Amino acid sequence: MAKQERAARTREALVRAAAEVFAEQGFVTASIAVISRRAGVSAGGLHFHFGSKTALAQAVEDQAARALRGVTVGGVGASAGGSALQVLVDSTHALMGLLADDVVVRAGFGLCADASWSGGVDLRRQWRLWVEEVMAEAAREGSLAEGLSPRDAARGVVAATVGLEVLGAHEPEWVAPHTLTRFWTLMLPRLAAVGVLGGLMPEGSAGSV
Amino acid sequence: MAKQERAARTREALVRAAAEVFAEQGFVTASIAVISRRAGVSAGGLHFHFGSKTALAQAVEDQAARALRGVTVGGVGASAGGSALQVLVDSTHALMGLLADDVVVRAGFGLCADASWSGGVDLRRQWRLWVEEVMAEAAREGSLAEGLSPRDAARGVVAATVGLEVLGAHEPEWVAPHTLTRFWTLMLPRLAAVGVLGGLMPEGSAGSV
Repeated sequence: MAKQERAARTREALVRAAAEVFAEQGFVTASIAVISRRAGVSAGGLHFHFGSKTALAQAVEDQAARALRGVTVGGVGASAGGSALQVLVDSTHALMGLLADDVVVRAGFGLCADASWSGGVDLRRQWRLWVEEVMAEAAREGSLAEGLSPRDAARGVVAATVGLEVLGAHEPEWVAPHTLTRFWTLMLPRLAAVGVLGGLMPEGSAGSV
Repeated sequence: MAKQERAARTREALVRAAAEVFAEQGFVTASIAVISRRAGVSAGGLHFHFGSKTALAQAVEDQAARALRGVTVGGVGASAGGSALQVLVDSTHALMGLLADDVVVRAGFGLCADASWSGGVDLRRQWRLWVEEVMAEAAREGSLAEGLSPRDAARGVVAATVGLEVLGAHEPEWVAPHTLTRFWTLMLPRLAAVGVLGGLMPEGSAGSV
């Protein structure tokens, strides 16, 4: 049992160290030796858990994908009385929070953009499909602004949030809560139906700044 | 003279081939041998023009930066009677057109995001500073929507256009004229003062779709 726990901790330390090195240097340049040293794990220990650098990158992507599902799944339809647009606002705040604080999520998104890596998980695509789903739900609820197509609304939000993610990788200011709050303050009056707008909180309903 | 012309053409072919390979594989993975073969230039010819892969990447960035200046410089203040917001709309159309059609510009922006490369030119930063300048000009003209800060307006536009650029590197649909036209149709009513909005063309004043 203690042995299993130790193994899980070692694995976690390796994924985290790999994420840090991928985020700093990209997949190709990242060295297995640097990753094991940073995790405080021997080369043998690393090879016991991960057969290759590719396996490590896949583990980073998988963990990032789970975190992304955590801020999206259960969103649509599950918001008791909340509008789909508020669910979207809340989830973008949660996602930017992860990008700011969790190097595994940041590295997972970074791997999407890394021309030297082609993994099995496309986090940006996963995010985009979810935004499209929420906008379709908002349209069904009747909470989208008159004449606005859910497709155009989704594209605008996807473009802007991907931009914030990419810019935030080098300048944390772009993924800070107040930046996102201002973005939603800018966008919501254009996205939401008149009767819905007043009830929406651009800072997120959980009360982030 | 003919010799100089030949040299200029060889140089151009090398920069273009390098841009293609960087865009496909990233900086680190790109091989000098593949680049010279693709350009139809001997290894000796490549080394005569560019001492290293780094020099090639710098040439790609420099050429992309010149192209970016071409769609931005001369914009603000130079638009006879045009509002700053129309200048911004037109320039984003020109930029997306470059990203769609010119692999050197696409690769130049790609290098900004490449963790394995740190060049001297940051195209995204150059773009962002220009957008901020245009928004400040729009505020001076009085053409921004009431209560809107030029800073928030600039951030929203920078985030969205960087997102379109990044997504467009893999899916050209994101940098297509109609995608950008819909984006501006979405955004302009939120950005422009009431009296200005009617005169703005989200499809660009040059008449792109």
